Amino acid sequence: MRTAAIVLIGNELLSGKIRDENAAWLTGRLRALGVQLRRVVMIPDEPDVIVDELRRLAPTVDDVFTSGGVGPTHDDLTIESVAAAFGVPVVRSPRLEAILRAHFAERLRPDHLRMADVPEGTELIEGGEIRWPVVHFRNLWILPGVPQIFRAKFDAIADRFRDGAFFLRSVYLDADEGAVAPLLRALQARFAVEVGSYPRIDAADHRVRVTIEARAAAPVDAAAAALLESLPAEQVVRADEAARPAG
Amino acid sequence: MRTAAIVLIGNELLSGKIRDENAAWLTGRLRALGVQLRRVVMIPDEPDVIVDELRRLAPTVDDVFTSGGVGPTHDDLTIESVAAAFGVPVVRSPRLEAILRAHFAERLRPDHLRMADVPEGTELIEGGEIRWPVVHFRNLWILPGVPQIFRAKFDAIADRFRDGAFFLRSVYLDADEGAVAPLLRALQARFAVEVGSYPRIDAADHRVRVTIEARAAAPVDAAAAALLESLPAEQVVRADEAARPAG
Repeated sequence: MRTAAIVLIGNELLSGKIRDENAAWLTGRLRALGVQLRRVVMIPDEPDVIVDELRRLAPTVDDVFTSGGVGPTHDDLTIESVAAAFGVPVVRSPRLEAILRAHFAERLRPDHLRMADVPEGTELIEGGEIRWPVVHFRNLWILPGVPQIFRAKFDAIADRFRDGAFFLRSVYLDADEGAVAPLLRALQARFAVEVGSYPRIDAADHRVRVTIEARAAAPVDAAAAALLESLPAEQVVRADEAARPAG
Repeated sequence: MRTAAIVLIGNELLSGKIRDENAAWLTGRLRALGVQLRRVVMIPDEPDVIVDELRRLAPTVDDVFTSGGVGPTHDDLTIESVAAAFGVPVVRSPRLEAILRAHFAERLRPDHLRMADVPEGTELIEGGEIRWPVVHFRNLWILPGVPQIFRAKFDAIADRFRDGAFFLRSVYLDADEGAVAPLLRALQARFAVEVGSYPRIDAADHRVRVTIEARAAAPVDAAAAALLESLPAEQVVRADEAARPAG
């Protein structure tokens, strides 16, 4: 199963000045593509912290998506941190420099050219709806923090991550979570599925949402049937009709 | 300066079945209390992963807030993971057991009593609006994932984290971020402030929001005055009148 992690880089996220939209969005996209997201990390604009995090995380998953820190200002430190993490120099990309020169023309400032810098060994991926290439270095996909651009860039490369689908079926219960716990444990042990249990204390029509998931529909439906059979009818508020692709 | 980290535990967050509300909310609360949030991590319900994360993170900040994994079902693994991370046994708390027995009475099931288990050495904090104590172990605050309870529990202990305030002033520019980058860099070097720069590409009235922050108002206002003096008037869309407490 293809696995991924997301690294959000930016003091503005940790201080609450800007609320994350990128991880929230990418989580859903990865799910729909069948990729297992293993971790989301939000860290400050500090090279030491970024370097440590990338070194630790990159070997543990197939793909790491970074968000933020790639603009022209003093707090944009992702590129140099990626290079430092993997022991390669930062080099200026002639292709990115040409794009910047064409875009800014006589308005070009030296700081703009920082956006042409990449870790040595970077692959630039062009195509789709995007005007600027996606920066790909080893198993890292270095994306900008501005949500509209983050999304457009991911969508331009999304197809290469497709890896089957997850199938999901939810059962909504008017029951106490502790009372159904043994049943859920037995379900997870008996079928090749992942069972989740999510209590609610607000005004929803149910007190517990049970989710049953797997990489195929058949075990999900078999487990759901077993669950529904085992529960008193009055505890079942409603249930999905059948397993459906998640995401 | 008091520092903190947030650890969100739950497969449902990484699969996008449930969107995080707790870190988003706590980020703002910590900011208002003057606490510097250093990291937010979202990890799955897997003891090995939780143990590694807590061992690594706990020594690096003053306080770690965990969210999730403390209910009665098979996927609630936070307590045993905390105990394993710090090499202590899980013990049943007589106080929590008494609360559970009083609450559930004849509806009590064996799985409910899992919620009375804590790492040995845990302190229970009662008071405020909460019916159940907050579980405090070393520098960890073990909070539940259900947002309403998460918030009530944090609010019951919030005052003990208060540590001054951050002061913030924003300046909104119709300018290119790369063109103002040297000015922002000089500002950060000259004043004891943190300068942030956030480009927008949507229909907002400005193209860049510059933020100036510090632990006191005076340096923020001095830096803002210097910035406003240095910019052509037509580039300044609007600016906060004065530094104000952030959060």
